[in-house]
Amino acid sequence: MKLSTQPYKGARDFYPEDLSIRKYLFDVIRLVVESYGYEEYDAPLIEPIELYQAKSGSEIVADQTYRFLDRGNREVAIRPEMTPSVSRMVAARRQQLAYPLRWYSIPNLWRYERPQRGRFREHWQLNVDIFGIASIAAELELIQITDNILRAFGGKPTMFRIKINHRQLLNLLFTDYLGLNPMQSIAMASLIDRSQKMVRSEFIEQIDKILTADQKRKSTTEKLLNVINSDSLDKLPPLLKNSEPAKQLRQLIEACSELSIGNVDFSLSIVRGFDYYSGLVFELFDASVENSRSMLGGGRYDGLVGLFGVENVPTAGFGLGDATLINFLKLHGLMPDVESLTQIYIVVIGELTLEAMKTANTLRRAGLKVAVDLSSKKLGEQIKTAAKKGIRYVLIIGENEIKSQQFTFRDLIASNEVKLSLVKIEKLVKASTLK
Amino acid sequence: MKLSTQPYKGARDFYPEDLSIRKYLFDVIRLVVESYGYEEYDAPLIEPIELYQAKSGSEIVADQTYRFLDRGNREVAIRPEMTPSVSRMVAARRQQLAYPLRWYSIPNLWRYERPQRGRFREHWQLNVDIFGIASIAAELELIQITDNILRAFGGKPTMFRIKINHRQLLNLLFTDYLGLNPMQSIAMASLIDRSQKMVRSEFIEQIDKILTADQKRKSTTEKLLNVINSDSLDKLPPLLKNSEPAKQLRQLIEACSELSIGNVDFSLSIVRGFDYYSGLVFELFDASVENSRSMLGGGRYDGLVGLFGVENVPTAGFGLGDATLINFLKLHGLMPDVESLTQIYIVVIGELTLEAMKTANTLRRAGLKVAVDLSSKKLGEQIKTAAKKGIRYVLIIGENEIKSQQFTFRDLIASNEVKLSLVKIEKLVKASTLK
Repeated sequence: MKLSTQPYKGARDFYPEDLSIRKYLFDVIRLVVESYGYEEYDAPLIEPIELYQAKSGSEIVADQTYRFLDRGNREVAIRPEMTPSVSRMVAARRQQLAYPLRWYSIPNLWRYERPQRGRFREHWQLNVDIFGIASIAAELELIQITDNILRAFGGKPTMFRIKINHRQLLNLLFTDYLGLNPMQSIAMASLIDRSQKMVRSEFIEQIDKILTADQKRKSTTEKLLNVINSDSLDKLPPLLKNSEPAKQLRQLIEACSELSIGNVDFSLSIVRGFDYYSGLVFELFDASVENSRSMLGGGRYDGLVGLFGVENVPTAGFGLGDATLINFLKLHGLMPDVESLTQIYIVVIGELTLEAMKTANTLRRAGLKVAVDLSSKKLGEQIKTAAKKGIRYVLIIGENEIKSQQFTFRDLIASNEVKLSLVKIEKLVKASTLK
Repeated sequence: MKLSTQPYKGARDFYPEDLSIRKYLFDVIRLVVESYGYEEYDAPLIEPIELYQAKSGSEIVADQTYRFLDRGNREVAIRPEMTPSVSRMVAARRQQLAYPLRWYSIPNLWRYERPQRGRFREHWQLNVDIFGIASIAAELELIQITDNILRAFGGKPTMFRIKINHRQLLNLLFTDYLGLNPMQSIAMASLIDRSQKMVRSEFIEQIDKILTADQKRKSTTEKLLNVINSDSLDKLPPLLKNSEPAKQLRQLIEACSELSIGNVDFSLSIVRGFDYYSGLVFELFDASVENSRSMLGGGRYDGLVGLFGVENVPTAGFGLGDATLINFLKLHGLMPDVESLTQIYIVVIGELTLEAMKTANTLRRAGLKVAVDLSSKKLGEQIKTAAKKGIRYVLIIGENEIKSQQFTFRDLIASNEVKLSLVKIEKLVKASTLK
């Protein structure tokens, strides 16, 4: 039987040149989040299904989880998100941990979705969470980090926008302003969350499906349409404009501005898919119309740790996926070139493998990354291999080189060749790497 | 409903202090393998079950895989090992890749086993493979890397031993020397692989179950017992001693010795669990009797890439798990102390969060890792938090500090406190980190 060489549908093979990009992305991100005092954690790939049923939102658990019975008949799922796991870990040590707790993680997550551009069944997601801070200082820090990450990749403030909203402002809108009942409010939130993928007529049709005949007679549809696309807190009806959530949103925008983050806007249409958000929510958008999907989302979810039978811990956090970030960087010309990590390729003439290995070890002890060919192919073939691998320097070892300890050393970029001692080779390669 | 705070059975939560150990381990390992020119790759967590059925060995697929039907009715498994995936990836680009190809990966792997000391259902495993080299230069390099990894952690040659064997020598033993048929050979290999967990009487009983009455009459059991524990190639029966595999084993031991790796021994009892090994095999053992399990195993598996319908590629590789490595390091006192990455903790007196954030940003731009407390707790409480997190330096911000730009700066290790400008604080912290 011939086996397929294709990866599982919707998942990606990461050849070294692909993985070097993912590593570059998350190395940059690690530097930023650690500069804010965040520490990395990890959790098992598999959790009991109850963990996600508790709060993830029904669509994800019912339609998108990879769930199965293990050999001990436990119903489990491959994690579709990290927030339930991190909440569980905090709850397990609720008393011992020192707050504010700043944690981050870069898990791979799995969702059974139709694969499409920038959307895979397996993706990697930065998760940044701060536990123990009830004030908006937590959200302020998270937005700073978001801004800082994009700038660390060379992003300019004109390339992206951060949109913020407040779940309690939405609650006031649904309950007090529009008079919806709790079930209608949930349906309306979910509809607004999906509304950016719809044309206006479809959106209106869906609204009308949620409302009662009586509500429609009272022009509830029109009232909703008039406010929902608002990007100004001051133009909201007084009931909303003067509310406590609106005050928090204003404070947050002002504080961002104080910290030189000018591209933060209010938008009543930001909802976030997960049921557990309880306060401020925010999303990051590419300013380019070619990439309209949300790149990053987060907010406050104060009630999740308490689900594990301990006292609640105020919490805010966000998630940023690798695929959407790569789309952003590509669109704005911010993707770096990939270079080989290996610095020297040793080409061996004749039966000198052991001598070549000893020479390589000398260079390695000096801190260099060195590969030995080992193939016993012809000289020209071995040099071609080095070029194909993108390795800049080739060191040629033959009988004469071993005797004289002067090695033929070729620079494949500059296309020149010299005879050098190992000490000089070491100096030359280190100097070129520093540039 | 109250949810459990426990991780899935046999899997581990990695709190930051736990993850920092795993990261330290694999950072050290990355440096070593990259110094030999190896490049990191990754593959999807999930593969079709056929990939493992083809070659992993029946016990793993039948009893230990996490397998299930996905929502599209494909039968899949969470990877129990990485070798089938990497073989698939090489096969997919058989023609384009430049050989020798040196690849490594550090995947998490899942096996449904009874959890016990140093054995988890989820573990991380370094996989190092070299493709395209048919000579024992490949195995020689892999053994060098193994030795180099342990030395990089501070291991001494007296703390570990590398045992080598050859699958074709075992074939000669089973077929030509003992006269077993192919089915008996497979059963005997599997038995020898498990024999270290058995007492001698049980081992003999199991041998007798495999042999026919006729074979037992011909003293096959005694012949096997006489050679199987051999650790000397020269004491083997002539049929084995003078064979080509024995010659390769001698060459490898001599070459290791040339490269100053003296603790490599022949052992006829090394088999390796996977069916795909085709030539030299090796395992790494802790020299301490307290930790008798194999820490690392590998060998040559030339036939795996060819299963994907392309020409075969000679291949050798090994795997090293995190849990067994940690056991080794702990037993020999080689585990490092964990330190907080965060360098400065900013403690805030009064309503100065924004000012504290600005001060933190100044220090971050200078390359420092800085956390701001944000809790509005009392001064003493905030300092206690810093101590609990293991952060050495505390910077106190109050009205006076902002006005004078001279900050109260406390060293929690030296227990002293001074007033300093931000520039001086930056210099002091950087100097202390260099030490």
